[in-house]
Amino acid sequence: MKNSTYLVIMAGGIGSRFWPLSTVETPKQFLDIVGTGKSLFQQTIDRFKGICPIQNIFVVTSARYSDLALSQCPGLLPENILKEPCMRNTAPCIAYAAWKIMKKNPEARIVVTPSDHMVTDTIEFQRVIRSGLRFITNKNRILTLGIRPSNPSTGYGYIQADAKPERNPEIFKVSAFREKPDLKTAVSYLEQGNYSWNSGLFLWSAATIREAFNRYLPEVAEIFSNASNIYYSNQEQDYINHYFPACPNISIDYSIMEKADNIYTMPCDFGWSDLGTWGSLFDELHKSKEQNVVIGDQVRLIDAEECIVHMPLHKKVVVQGLKNYIVAESSGTLLICNKNEEQRIREFSGYFNK
Amino acid sequence: MKNSTYLVIMAGGIGSRFWPLSTVETPKQFLDIVGTGKSLFQQTIDRFKGICPIQNIFVVTSARYSDLALSQCPGLLPENILKEPCMRNTAPCIAYAAWKIMKKNPEARIVVTPSDHMVTDTIEFQRVIRSGLRFITNKNRILTLGIRPSNPSTGYGYIQADAKPERNPEIFKVSAFREKPDLKTAVSYLEQGNYSWNSGLFLWSAATIREAFNRYLPEVAEIFSNASNIYYSNQEQDYINHYFPACPNISIDYSIMEKADNIYTMPCDFGWSDLGTWGSLFDELHKSKEQNVVIGDQVRLIDAEECIVHMPLHKKVVVQGLKNYIVAESSGTLLICNKNEEQRIREFSGYFNK
Repeated sequence: MKNSTYLVIMAGGIGSRFWPLSTVETPKQFLDIVGTGKSLFQQTIDRFKGICPIQNIFVVTSARYSDLALSQCPGLLPENILKEPCMRNTAPCIAYAAWKIMKKNPEARIVVTPSDHMVTDTIEFQRVIRSGLRFITNKNRILTLGIRPSNPSTGYGYIQADAKPERNPEIFKVSAFREKPDLKTAVSYLEQGNYSWNSGLFLWSAATIREAFNRYLPEVAEIFSNASNIYYSNQEQDYINHYFPACPNISIDYSIMEKADNIYTMPCDFGWSDLGTWGSLFDELHKSKEQNVVIGDQVRLIDAEECIVHMPLHKKVVVQGLKNYIVAESSGTLLICNKNEEQRIREFSGYFNK
Repeated sequence: MKNSTYLVIMAGGIGSRFWPLSTVETPKQFLDIVGTGKSLFQQTIDRFKGICPIQNIFVVTSARYSDLALSQCPGLLPENILKEPCMRNTAPCIAYAAWKIMKKNPEARIVVTPSDHMVTDTIEFQRVIRSGLRFITNKNRILTLGIRPSNPSTGYGYIQADAKPERNPEIFKVSAFREKPDLKTAVSYLEQGNYSWNSGLFLWSAATIREAFNRYLPEVAEIFSNASNIYYSNQEQDYINHYFPACPNISIDYSIMEKADNIYTMPCDFGWSDLGTWGSLFDELHKSKEQNVVIGDQVRLIDAEECIVHMPLHKKVVVQGLKNYIVAESSGTLLICNKNEEQRIREFSGYFNK
């Protein structure tokens, strides 16, 4: 039987908050940021093993990272790497992938996933994905996975679910998408209980999302619809290079999710982290007795607490007397920074970009 | 006219307190520890320009560092590099150098100098050396240079001078050598005014020091006296390898200085530092407005005070939020350590020597 499940991996981001690990040359998703021996991009692909075959995996990324993506996952079909000539947020590239996949398989069911997040419970993750796929199969439904919030974070958008579940009791109609809240609002979301974090994981059929683009973003739909004869041909990249920049710079959340009425959510709990900052990486990883996180096999900590030390594998390092610090090195660049100041890392990285 | 001034540079030490810069492979004296582009050994040689020609410079070092010394100063005569097969403190190697130099020139006047100290006022240094050389020429006198103490340091031995100066009013007979004192004693030394730090810089004629060895360390004198036929020959190294280990492991201070009665001292002030620790390097170098010392041209300090950051020249580094820290990298090994804990650095370096 033909496997009609397709995966679209969004891998175009920069992730400058993880400097000096992440750089414009090698952004976060292509780095082994948690020290497992695999990049977050490779871990994302692994997470879908058994759900769809590798020839059904599409990667949307910047033209400059397409070789990197292929080198990290040599089994990918080169024609399945969609090269954006410029950044236009999530809506245009999701449309591009949807039309291209539909050309190959009109029955396609698509999972869209970020490439730079972490999931620790892959078994639960796959259960959720399979359950979600059943929910959208042959239905005009858009499903977005929510993350059950562990704390009133002000760093994520929230999905507000209807009180009443669908027939699948894990799934709810979406009442509203909420921007990143202030702390007071976030606390009230958690008290109300029907809010979850917006993870950027979406499930839909190709036909459903195409229909949504036709209705809510017709100018984008037109660009990719007009291209249907050139997908998988020599002309594809030229066409994309020419027309993609004309797309509006707009997110899928803003352009479709917040407007359509067939949007559902499934609040999940599979050990998810967006690894948005050093602090969130620290929160996720195994800590020593002194509450330190160490990546690197020759790192010695003395009188150190609550630090995250991220070093090249065999680099010899002694850290004495630090509390609550980030110590990170990559590509010969070293950062030492109090964890409370991590929002300034983007500024620090700019010092060397002149 | 033949130049009868000879220089003996003691370059056999390890300097493990400057780890990770100094290592057994490349000890402190062969490193550009102050960021001038020259190692301390090279600076030591430069300091004697005009005082003696390069063919009069002898270097005493471990056999393992002889190539390093030659590579840092290609003009040195290879036969002038005295290779110790093992460490026997200062007395045996000073005897070796004295007998070997005397074989070449019985009129020799010798300056003995450490190779890992810093001198900032080279003009005053050369004036002192020339004045000292005049004082010992054709006289049976041993002159040791003292450093006028700037503070009651407990890290140095002290030289106690007689109250009454010699005919050269800068020079005094030595009353006693004093071990490293406790703080109270050091304060009293400074109050009394006739104490100076023992710098390890000595001046004497070859004949004088030979006479002192004959009297106070006859077993050492015998070893090097018996060798007079083989200096500068193919048999020299074999002889040394065989007999040098039989020498007692003893310092020149303890074996001769403290016993002889023809010892003089000249209290000096030529911007000397023994650079014994990171803290003393910090004290010596130029500080920014925030009292930071930085070596490396791509180091950015943010909210940092009283730190010493010593990095490979072009390494990109951001240090945020540290006060009173050492941040040092060399040969791919990184140290971050509170300056108050620098006495533990030797312990830290041991972590990686297994």
